[in-house]
Amino acid sequence: MTTDDAAAGPSRRRLLVGLGVAAGVAVGAGADRAAVALGRDPAASGTGDVVPFEGAHQAGVTTPVQAHLHLAALDVVTDRREEVADLLDRWTAAARALVAGRAVGEHGAVDGDPLAPPEDTGEAVGLPPARLTLTVGVGPSLFDDRFGLAARRPAALAELPPFAGDALDPARCGGDLVVQACADDPQVAVHAVRTLVRLAAGTAAVRWAQLGFGRASSTDPSVPTPRNLFGFKDGTANPDGRDAAAMAEHVWVGEDDDPAGAWLAGGSYLVARRVEMHVETWDRSPLAEQEQVVGRSKGEGAPLGLAREHDVLDATAVAGLPATSHVALAHPSRHGGAQMLRRGYSYVDGADGLGHLQAGLVFLAYQRDPRRAFVPVQEALSRDDAMNEYVRHTGSGVWAVLPGVGPGGRWGSTLLG
Amino acid sequence: MTTDDAAAGPSRRRLLVGLGVAAGVAVGAGADRAAVALGRDPAASGTGDVVPFEGAHQAGVTTPVQAHLHLAALDVVTDRREEVADLLDRWTAAARALVAGRAVGEHGAVDGDPLAPPEDTGEAVGLPPARLTLTVGVGPSLFDDRFGLAARRPAALAELPPFAGDALDPARCGGDLVVQACADDPQVAVHAVRTLVRLAAGTAAVRWAQLGFGRASSTDPSVPTPRNLFGFKDGTANPDGRDAAAMAEHVWVGEDDDPAGAWLAGGSYLVARRVEMHVETWDRSPLAEQEQVVGRSKGEGAPLGLAREHDVLDATAVAGLPATSHVALAHPSRHGGAQMLRRGYSYVDGADGLGHLQAGLVFLAYQRDPRRAFVPVQEALSRDDAMNEYVRHTGSGVWAVLPGVGPGGRWGSTLLG
Ligand code: HEM
Ligand code: HEM
Repeated sequence: MTTDDAAAGPSRRRLLVGLGVAAGVAVGAGADRAAVALGRDPAASGTGDVVPFEGAHQAGVTTPVQAHLHLAALDVVTDRREEVADLLDRWTAAARALVAGRAVGEHGAVDGDPLAPPEDTGEAVGLPPARLTLTVGVGPSLFDDRFGLAARRPAALAELPPFAGDALDPARCGGDLVVQACADDPQVAVHAVRTLVRLAAGTAAVRWAQLGFGRASSTDPSVPTPRNLFGFKDGTANPDGRDAAAMAEHVWVGEDDDPAGAWLAGGSYLVARRVEMHVETWDRSPLAEQEQVVGRSKGEGAPLGLAREHDVLDATAVAGLPATSHVALAHPSRHGGAQMLRRGYSYVDGADGLGHLQAGLVFLAYQRDPRRAFVPVQEALSRDDAMNEYVRHTGSGVWAVLPGVGPGGRWGSTLLG
Repeated sequence: MTTDDAAAGPSRRRLLVGLGVAAGVAVGAGADRAAVALGRDPAASGTGDVVPFEGAHQAGVTTPVQAHLHLAALDVVTDRREEVADLLDRWTAAARALVAGRAVGEHGAVDGDPLAPPEDTGEAVGLPPARLTLTVGVGPSLFDDRFGLAARRPAALAELPPFAGDALDPARCGGDLVVQACADDPQVAVHAVRTLVRLAAGTAAVRWAQLGFGRASSTDPSVPTPRNLFGFKDGTANPDGRDAAAMAEHVWVGEDDDPAGAWLAGGSYLVARRVEMHVETWDRSPLAEQEQVVGRSKGEGAPLGLAREHDVLDATAVAGLPATSHVALAHPSRHGGAQMLRRGYSYVDGADGLGHLQAGLVFLAYQRDPRRAFVPVQEALSRDDAMNEYVRHTGSGVWAVLPGVGPGGRWGSTLLG
């Protein structure tokens, strides 16, 4: 038994077994069987692969961006608040095991009983932890009259306003809960989301989900900035995820941000937008136009007029950029210094039936208050961004990202008791 | 300039520049500029990353399975046969560059002209070759009356018959051409397909496309067998891709297989099926039932009744398996010894709108003659496979996979001249 299991304690272990039942699974539970079976061998994949689960903040926000994303938004299907609390309890226990590269329960016979469904679905057996992080949030819709939480909704946790040009598909919007799974192996991320979804059976069901690959962002300026599907470096001007002061200022919710939202101190807000990128049109436009649209050079990624990618783009330099360029409109100097931590991924979802690949960006941004970061920036972009000719927002969501958990802690305890 | 470029010769280089024009791109072409610019640095990623492009057979069939798939089926939109030949010519030249980790043309200014669209889309700049393979095939529909090829259609290249339980979506079926891109980095595979699709503008357009991850097959028994989304090892009984005699017998088309299809000697046939896997239902069924459905144990992957994954499953052992098990019905001993080389991937395409993840298998199998391999096996499976309760075939295609190309050679030359 590992430290994590010990910390979780016996009640947590019983819980894990119990939730097989919640998921509609008949489980025979031997009293002294460790509920969290060692399904995978973290040691086999070398060190550095496990991202610690516990901390003041959840992992998966400032964590250096992993290679793959599986994002799932869920709706709660019960009206009993304690069932939501139980679900978050089960999720916490499962997440502790999953991020350490362990299965959630047996992937084979449970207590030697072949007539029981396996507790773990098995497809991640043998795979390394792959730096899996699981990051959980709650949407504004959780604070409607169902659960008596209305008075605890922070003002910042409001549905996003409509923006010019929005082409949102309701089937890709919202969700009472969100799970962001990131890992360097997509099968590990997919297994983790599937496991949490399974544990939610009867309490919450998937509303929408999206795979992403090929980081379109960087939270660590010491690694080369990846490129998005427009071929541009993406993430250059992101705040540095390793800079605790910057994160405290721009990403983490403070103790005194909102009396109604004291439960969220140490948490954050996640805005997700599924943005179609019309790559065929983009690919036909001249290099100079592409660069004017972005406001940076394509090869080096430098602000136009400057030489190197990381040359400082201050308010003066911004004034020299095309007024409708993406970077000029999004720059903090235009928004009272507000910043957000972008953590997006590219996606390709087959073809559109008209001879084109369906490609785009799963835009993900963490921030201390969407009203001062995403909302004003997207208002400016949606009105004037020259990039709008090439993109279309088709999905959207905003969630309060729960504070981190300490030893023995669980997600949502500050909100749901 | 590398050996490949030298081998391709000046005319190939002009061609590459020229096809910017075919793709609707205005290109200023400096006479002594290498059209294939070094956009990425193969050396940076260590050796062993480049899969050789040339050979008697195309790469991407017996090549040890890479981590990611981007499959694209295209329809020809011209009725001029020479344009199809030109397209395959452009594709060959581009593929030589792409698999070596090079861009196809400039990703920045073309001949210093910022008013020209970049020749390369740029998102793979800085990425390693990642063992990219590009494998191209032609479908039965290419042999209708449009191109005067009817007499050259091998009898084995026929549309697949309908199977019991088929739930095929026409928007995910067929295609005059197919490109299978496999790589260890999804962005490299996506960039390659996007590049070929772009080069096809005016000649062919995407009909359907599918991303895949997490190998659900193995063509090399010396590596651990991966697991599919049912949690079972998948690929155990695959023929060994390194066994040239087995490949000659079961995968590669022979000189004398079909007089009409002499052009296909050294090629193969690819059958693709998009198969939904209803993982929620599967996850609720007992371990013993899952194992009876497959005919192998879940943990070890051994045939039921035997001990180890690679214990030989001969006709006698097959007789001991449940008659409706997948493995018993698919086993070569039931089909005159016919084998196929499976090379499939898992997929997850968001949610289904009913609270479930949409997950499944991109089944890909290479074979010498689908009439003796895929068709009879799928006929048996579609009638009797206990697995049918959990799966649904929603997409389908069959293509003749062109023979490999030698130095200076190009795809399709034996068919289109
Ligand atoms: C498909 C859609 C988008 C694409 C392709 C895109 C691409 C880019 C690129 C290439 C950069 C410059 C490099 C960098 O600093 O990261 C950038 C910067 C930025 N983008 Fe976007 N972006 C998209 C959507 C958005 C959205 C929806 C927002 C927020 C509403 C946003 C906010 C920002 C911000 C804040 C910056 C940094 C500006 C600065 O401080 O210089 N982007 N984006
Ligand atoms: C979602 C659909 C499918 C799943 C989950 C699946 C899964 C499996 C598994 C777990 C095995 C045993 C391990 C191995 O030998 O690879 C197997 C074997 C096999 N499957 Fe499938 N399969 C699927 C569809 C198909 C289809 C459509 C065909 C062909 C029509 C096929 C042909 C075979 C063959 C030939 C074998 C090897 C049998 C032997 O020689 O023992 N499978 N499959």
